[in-house]
Amino acid sequence: MKKYFLIFSLLAFCKVSAQQSSANLTLMPWPKSVEINAGQFRITSEFTVNLTGQKDDDILEEAANRFLQRINRNTLAYFKQEKIELNQSLSSSSLQIKVDQKVEPGIGLDESYQLSITDNGVHLSAPTTSGALFGLESLLQLVATDSVGFYFPAVEIKDSPRFGWRGMMLDVSRHFIPMDILKRNIDAMAVVKLNVLHLHLTDDEGFRVESKVFPKLHEKGSKGQFYTQEEIKDLVTYAKERGIMVYPEFDLPGHSTSWFAGYPELASAPGPYEPGHRYKVKEGASMQEAMQVIMKSALPTLDPSKESTFKFLDQFIEEMSSLFPSPYMHIGADENNGLAWLENPKIAAFMKQKGFENAEELQAYFVERMHEILSKHHKTTIGWEELYNADLSKEVIVQQWGAIGANRPNAMEIAQKGNKVLISKGFYLDYFLEAKAHYNNPNIPKEVHPNILGGEAALWSELVDENGFETRAWPRTAAVAERLWSPESVNDVDEMYRRLFILEDKLEENGLNHKLNSERMLSALANGQDISAALKVLTALAPARGYGRLLSQFVAAESKKYQSVPLVAIEDLVACDYKEAWVFKTNVEEYLQNRDDLVKVRLLNQLEEWNLASSKITQLITKAPNPKEFAIYADRLSKVTEIGLKSLKSNSSREQSEEWLKELKTFKQRGDKLEIQILPQIEALISAGMKN
Amino acid sequence: MKKYFLIFSLLAFCKVSAQQSSANLTLMPWPKSVEINAGQFRITSEFTVNLTGQKDDDILEEAANRFLQRINRNTLAYFKQEKIELNQSLSSSSLQIKVDQKVEPGIGLDESYQLSITDNGVHLSAPTTSGALFGLESLLQLVATDSVGFYFPAVEIKDSPRFGWRGMMLDVSRHFIPMDILKRNIDAMAVVKLNVLHLHLTDDEGFRVESKVFPKLHEKGSKGQFYTQEEIKDLVTYAKERGIMVYPEFDLPGHSTSWFAGYPELASAPGPYEPGHRYKVKEGASMQEAMQVIMKSALPTLDPSKESTFKFLDQFIEEMSSLFPSPYMHIGADENNGLAWLENPKIAAFMKQKGFENAEELQAYFVERMHEILSKHHKTTIGWEELYNADLSKEVIVQQWGAIGANRPNAMEIAQKGNKVLISKGFYLDYFLEAKAHYNNPNIPKEVHPNILGGEAALWSELVDENGFETRAWPRTAAVAERLWSPESVNDVDEMYRRLFILEDKLEENGLNHKLNSERMLSALANGQDISAALKVLTALAPARGYGRLLSQFVAAESKKYQSVPLVAIEDLVACDYKEAWVFKTNVEEYLQNRDDLVKVRLLNQLEEWNLASSKITQLITKAPNPKEFAIYADRLSKVTEIGLKSLKSNSSREQSEEWLKELKTFKQRGDKLEIQILPQIEALISAGMKN
Repeated sequence: MKKYFLIFSLLAFCKVSAQQSSANLTLMPWPKSVEINAGQFRITSEFTVNLTGQKDDDILEEAANRFLQRINRNTLAYFKQEKIELNQSLSSSSLQIKVDQKVEPGIGLDESYQLSITDNGVHLSAPTTSGALFGLESLLQLVATDSVGFYFPAVEIKDSPRFGWRGMMLDVSRHFIPMDILKRNIDAMAVVKLNVLHLHLTDDEGFRVESKVFPKLHEKGSKGQFYTQEEIKDLVTYAKERGIMVYPEFDLPGHSTSWFAGYPELASAPGPYEPGHRYKVKEGASMQEAMQVIMKSALPTLDPSKESTFKFLDQFIEEMSSLFPSPYMHIGADENNGLAWLENPKIAAFMKQKGFENAEELQAYFVERMHEILSKHHKTTIGWEELYNADLSKEVIVQQWGAIGANRPNAMEIAQKGNKVLISKGFYLDYFLEAKAHYNNPNIPKEVHPNILGGEAALWSELVDENGFETRAWPRTAAVAERLWSPESVNDVDEMYRRLFILEDKLEENGLNHKLNSERMLSALANGQDISAALKVLTALAPARGYGRLLSQFVAAESKKYQSVPLVAIEDLVACDYKEAWVFKTNVEEYLQNRDDLVKVRLLNQLEEWNLASSKITQLITKAPNPKEFAIYADRLSKVTEIGLKSLKSNSSREQSEEWLKELKTFKQRGDKLEIQILPQIEALISAGMKN
Repeated sequence: MKKYFLIFSLLAFCKVSAQQSSANLTLMPWPKSVEINAGQFRITSEFTVNLTGQKDDDILEEAANRFLQRINRNTLAYFKQEKIELNQSLSSSSLQIKVDQKVEPGIGLDESYQLSITDNGVHLSAPTTSGALFGLESLLQLVATDSVGFYFPAVEIKDSPRFGWRGMMLDVSRHFIPMDILKRNIDAMAVVKLNVLHLHLTDDEGFRVESKVFPKLHEKGSKGQFYTQEEIKDLVTYAKERGIMVYPEFDLPGHSTSWFAGYPELASAPGPYEPGHRYKVKEGASMQEAMQVIMKSALPTLDPSKESTFKFLDQFIEEMSSLFPSPYMHIGADENNGLAWLENPKIAAFMKQKGFENAEELQAYFVERMHEILSKHHKTTIGWEELYNADLSKEVIVQQWGAIGANRPNAMEIAQKGNKVLISKGFYLDYFLEAKAHYNNPNIPKEVHPNILGGEAALWSELVDENGFETRAWPRTAAVAERLWSPESVNDVDEMYRRLFILEDKLEENGLNHKLNSERMLSALANGQDISAALKVLTALAPARGYGRLLSQFVAAESKKYQSVPLVAIEDLVACDYKEAWVFKTNVEEYLQNRDDLVKVRLLNQLEEWNLASSKITQLITKAPNPKEFAIYADRLSKVTEIGLKSLKSNSSREQSEEWLKELKTFKQRGDKLEIQILPQIEALISAGMKN
């Protein structure tokens, strides 16, 4: 929580005078238009709120009251006003909120708001309830302090989102995520103005929602870990009150083993089935053999050749349609290689009868039938990009994720051909990338197209369970949220990180556990010993980026039980971004530009601190058996920082530099669970310090 | 999490040879009999469990599987055995568990177990399911490490509790405590072998359970914060699976404002009523005036003169009896001054008609009627000690808490006269006392009496909400648990603290948030600044002990809304015990005995660290308005440690010493929110260093 003095450039995209900057504002996502003025409105116990809106706008009234208590909590001002009631006409109130139209969260609403803060008071106006909720979040983020106390700085904000669909896709199937975590996640989503929660409720590994019509779905398909219908209703309401629409995904025809545990008659191949991983890789198989299994074997798949299958699905979708009031429903339709269909003679006969030449055509048929069923139950169909084909109904929304396959159209191409699109490609949190990778996601087109609705951050949960869920989800999702909300011109990575690291602390102070859970896991690994050195070492590391670890899970023997062992090892707790590493990176960049001695001192200090901390890990592991693997990376960090220090302290010969660069390459290896996050900067320092 | 080297005496109560000690064992509560042997059983991925018990003992089977995953989590051994199934006759398993009788948690069970660990394996046997669950908790606490890995040390344990009723009373009315916190609390209770959760569900401030028969109870009485019946069922099951019985309290005839919000006809005085504080103290009233209100005014009270009241209660108790399967139910019956009855002419007439001479007799009548109703619904009545009178049915259980009143019998007197007794006097966690005060609670009689069932730690929630709930409940409840479980001879405070501070970290590593939430609140107060100095300062402080703060709440203007403001100030996050303060205390004691220079150095170091940290708080508050009050105590600590350092460094004159002692007295004042925890030790150092 140390404050660093940061140099950053004035940003072109906000209206600031030469003397003013966004420096003191921690808004995230950054608004469309911000005008910073002189002055401020002080927050005291006399602060009051007047709320003008449509009759019975309970969402608005409750949000305003939560806002009041959250400010109370942040400022300890203990307002005299205990409760805000709608339409009390308190014209002298400090904060005047005015909302024209009562709405429930959804897509296609006017989500704009205007915020005006002067010495005399605060005005928030919004055409809809949703806009007002976003405005209240901005107002909370504006709370500032000085030695006197708390205040709102004088600003004029006019804000509205770039995209109307700003979502988060959570896979609660591979690992079940308890309700309290989902609720904390919703709280955090609301802070960054996300408006859609997409629950991936079913997959091979688990069927996570209670069905009263087909109870064997959750009874046999979940190993006891599912949400009751009461819990779902409660969650949907909780989200709605915070401006977020929840919609479900029921992934078919592949990714469906858990359905077949209770209803094997739905499958293309006879049972019995158990919820669990669909890839049956032999113990000790090579990576290549494993890929063969994944790509070339018949996997559990729904049988679309039987009419009874669709009768079942019709009844099931009917039940779920009333449980989830959202007008959207997701049918999955991803990663079906079709081999199970081709291997079943009855299905082959059905295809022949229908004139389908290949599995793709049967998949298209399945999608069409599902779309019919969903339409009947007043739901708009969404599916992953594999469901896209030239004949796909224009009513179906396509969610792009980056599926492997020849000639896949990009989002803009799909949009131009007439289907609406959601973008998740480039927003996969389980790739363990830095926030900046998602922030400037190249898959988000620069130009606007009305069919590109927006996107969703996606957290698949093969490698995350309830222990590390928050650590993986946040704060990176905030970078996705800004990409989807803010204008395209808001794209300065350093300025994003400045605000992200402040937001991350605020989220934690308000209840999220992304850093605390990481610390908790580290404490457990350290077996009661002081973890400060280990915490320091972590700030120069990162999880190995990409899907390498996931793929090695598929082939490793332990893959078969990856669902049942707690994910609390060092690779589960290391964060994807650390402020310290980012500060180091900006210092290196600055130093390489101007060779400032003061900056050099800062770099030396950082490297020495990391070096010292990494040397202490050897001691730690004598009393704690588990962080032994961590010690390997600490040792690498020790060597990396030593090289960095030597390189910084004196220009070195070309031979020496090349030797160092060669050594550095050995610190990143195939199969690593962690990476040295500061490695590229050390390489840059060496290259720059190299004598010609 | 630093490890301190601690000197402690061998304990007489456990069977240890001269070379062995309990030093490496962190069992808490300490067992009845522990024999430590040479050897160990190593925990590897080959570890397996064989479970022999009664058919369909699901509680046992699930507990064994949770045990397996908890060991997995602690050791990252990733056992090959994925699941334990009952009665598989795996005779070669590492851990053999044998249970004779299948039971659900309750009172009067045989809760004993035996644990035998040798180089060859681990044997756990218990006559009942409950005993086996306790044995598994002991086994988990025995997991030890060395540089090689994890192991169970060779021990022979024969264990059974001193008292059969080991409970925790949680007030969820004054502040609503969410379900996830209650569940984490149950997890922690199970670790320390508590077996009863007493939920204080109703009070003036809130009616916290859904009633389908009288829905206005929760609708009007809870401000929307109540548990649904589904949630209660889920909680009861969750607790049952962890060896804990849940029973409810419906507090009547006083403490009942929230009932009258929906059903004013139940009250002795006409409404309308709103859930909230029953003491209507004028703003700016003196403490004396406030006490007058509390003691001498008519407070909201149930009307027991109408037969309709009992008809209502009969139906309500019937509904709750099926919701809570426990055979016990608590009716409160505390703190009724009877004035509301005397002021109502109809009630006065009823008393006259019945021949009741005073409110006490009407109270006895009320208790008798309630006891009849509860008996009809197969519940044993429990009430706070004010319900006790000479004619009270011997079936009623009396819960002693330390009510003010003339000639109140103590627990042993009540027991000897024939009523069963639960002791909460001396176990009030909301007095903010140190663990040791509860550990050697003088209200627990030394001798055993069969009518003394046991006791309950009690956490009233006027001054604690969801933010600080875990910080207030833990780890002190573990000291209460040991008092109720372990033999009377287990009473060494230093040895208790040694294990308590280890247990506290383990609880946190396994999911509890008592330290993390405190850190979270401090981070919020610090407004993004480094909190390490503030954390250090805290370790020499404590909340002001006793009920001073509670009483000042009643008179302060803010008392009226104490329910609606978040309790996240410095006094809410400071813990009641800190390891650093305890180490300092033991160092001072050692130093005063032997004047060892090495110990003196340790003391000087500690004082200098505190002194340095406290000087940094001035800096902190320039950027954070809220910890200003904290700075007052930091300043005191700075002065106290300065005096301590001076006194330690050289013997001082009598005048100087007396002047210091006089100055120290100014650092503890009426109305303080915090205390300097190390003050008595500094005083002792000065007194000892004083020249004659």
